[in-house]
Amino acid sequence: MELWFTEKQTPHLHWSCRVTQTLYSKQTPYQQVDVFETEQFGRIMTLDGMVMITEHDEFAYHELLTHVAMNTHDHPKQILVIGGGDGGAIREILRYQTVKRVVLAEIDEAVIDASKRFFPHISSGFSDARVEIQIGDGMDYIRQYQEEFDIILIDSTEPIGVGKKLFESLFYHSVFRALKKDGLMVAQTLSPWVNQSLIRQCYHKIAQIFPITRLYMGQVPTYPSGSWTFTLGSKHYDPLKVDESRLPHLKQTRYYHPQLHRALFQLPKFVKEIIATEE
Amino acid sequence: MELWFTEKQTPHLHWSCRVTQTLYSKQTPYQQVDVFETEQFGRIMTLDGMVMITEHDEFAYHELLTHVAMNTHDHPKQILVIGGGDGGAIREILRYQTVKRVVLAEIDEAVIDASKRFFPHISSGFSDARVEIQIGDGMDYIRQYQEEFDIILIDSTEPIGVGKKLFESLFYHSVFRALKKDGLMVAQTLSPWVNQSLIRQCYHKIAQIFPITRLYMGQVPTYPSGSWTFTLGSKHYDPLKVDESRLPHLKQTRYYHPQLHRALFQLPKFVKEIIATEE
Repeated sequence: MELWFTEKQTPHLHWSCRVTQTLYSKQTPYQQVDVFETEQFGRIMTLDGMVMITEHDEFAYHELLTHVAMNTHDHPKQILVIGGGDGGAIREILRYQTVKRVVLAEIDEAVIDASKRFFPHISSGFSDARVEIQIGDGMDYIRQYQEEFDIILIDSTEPIGVGKKLFESLFYHSVFRALKKDGLMVAQTLSPWVNQSLIRQCYHKIAQIFPITRLYMGQVPTYPSGSWTFTLGSKHYDPLKVDESRLPHLKQTRYYHPQLHRALFQLPKFVKEIIATEE
Repeated sequence: MELWFTEKQTPHLHWSCRVTQTLYSKQTPYQQVDVFETEQFGRIMTLDGMVMITEHDEFAYHELLTHVAMNTHDHPKQILVIGGGDGGAIREILRYQTVKRVVLAEIDEAVIDASKRFFPHISSGFSDARVEIQIGDGMDYIRQYQEEFDIILIDSTEPIGVGKKLFESLFYHSVFRALKKDGLMVAQTLSPWVNQSLIRQCYHKIAQIFPITRLYMGQVPTYPSGSWTFTLGSKHYDPLKVDESRLPHLKQTRYYHPQLHRALFQLPKFVKEIIATEE
């Protein structure tokens, strides 16, 4: 018997990989969580049938989400991750000595549990004393704070179900408020080939609130189209003005390195055009 | 009834898109050529069951293959394209006023015919007076020449069947010989996620022959993994020393623009590591 997992990326496009073993399957109050063993990508975790992480390429997504922000801010100490229950973003954040405290606000504890159990490599940071886990709605959590964090990373699912409100202006206002005077945020904002109108909307919502807004892009082969965008909103630091020669060379990264920092912001023409106008 | 085309990207990974109409299907002496109408990507052409072009993203591949070379050479006049029977590379080359002659050496006339019939937008350059079509083996064709071309583009299929010899040292030697004293070549060299050893081999084969060898990368969502590499071998011009401020801004491009030129060569760390050693 052959077992295949199929992600219906759109009604007209399916992506299927062969499963050698189903390791975990749970319907939580928020979503369906599954963990599979695959030949092609090692272990993968899906939420509501969409690939969230695979062992083979999670480094690309987590490094892209994390290191641009960490290297744009001069001295990031207090970091908040919203979503990201697998722990991959936390693992990357903890590579910096400046970091004093990382809060993870994840709505679904089952994601954290599944990651601890099946992805020890990704969830390794959970045992670090600097990490604080908050189970609950990221929106409710962030509302309590004012000028608390240096960096906020929005490691959300797609803008459907529990993830929807994390793509709205009301949420970005709360993020702005919870950031220190020189704080910055990065949100994952999906594929420039599939989600143009979402990217445009997020960019302009963030640009209405933050003085500096920049879109950057990288490759995550197991996400739809293989290209992925990230939107950075900043109160003070401009990622394009970073002195790359002064950035640390982290031994453990496999995607990000200092000479890539500014190049990530050089977008193909069609992507520049997505955000060039509000409509 | 639903009709789906499935590309078996690896034995463990399938990529399927819904077909609304089969427009063309022919077994030639070289390969199976099919043209489908799809909801997701418009018309697509497949060779031996692998996607070669889709209406929606062919611009990315053809612009990446062509414009880096055309903007690295100071005054490209004589251009040779090996493979590329769809005509997409030729269409991009003809955007430059300096070009006097473009030769297309394609082994399979059926690809040219199918493109003329079903992809008028892509094959539009075939009617240009500067274009010369040579039906035959690219390897045999190129052997006749010495210091003839400014640029040679290798727009091949995968390194199996008819395309195999276009990834070998013997061929790259012939390319070197057929290039003028300041000539350069670009070859498509597949995915950095799927084809690491092929990329490494091609890079070092080319580096043994050409004084300047550079790998660059871009996104083509309908190719495996969505990321694609290109290897440039040059006798004189270095793509990293191009003055971007002097490059022309072509109105018709949708991917390439002058500020992207050097950024394309800034590779993720794992891709740099692929070519860092010969083994």
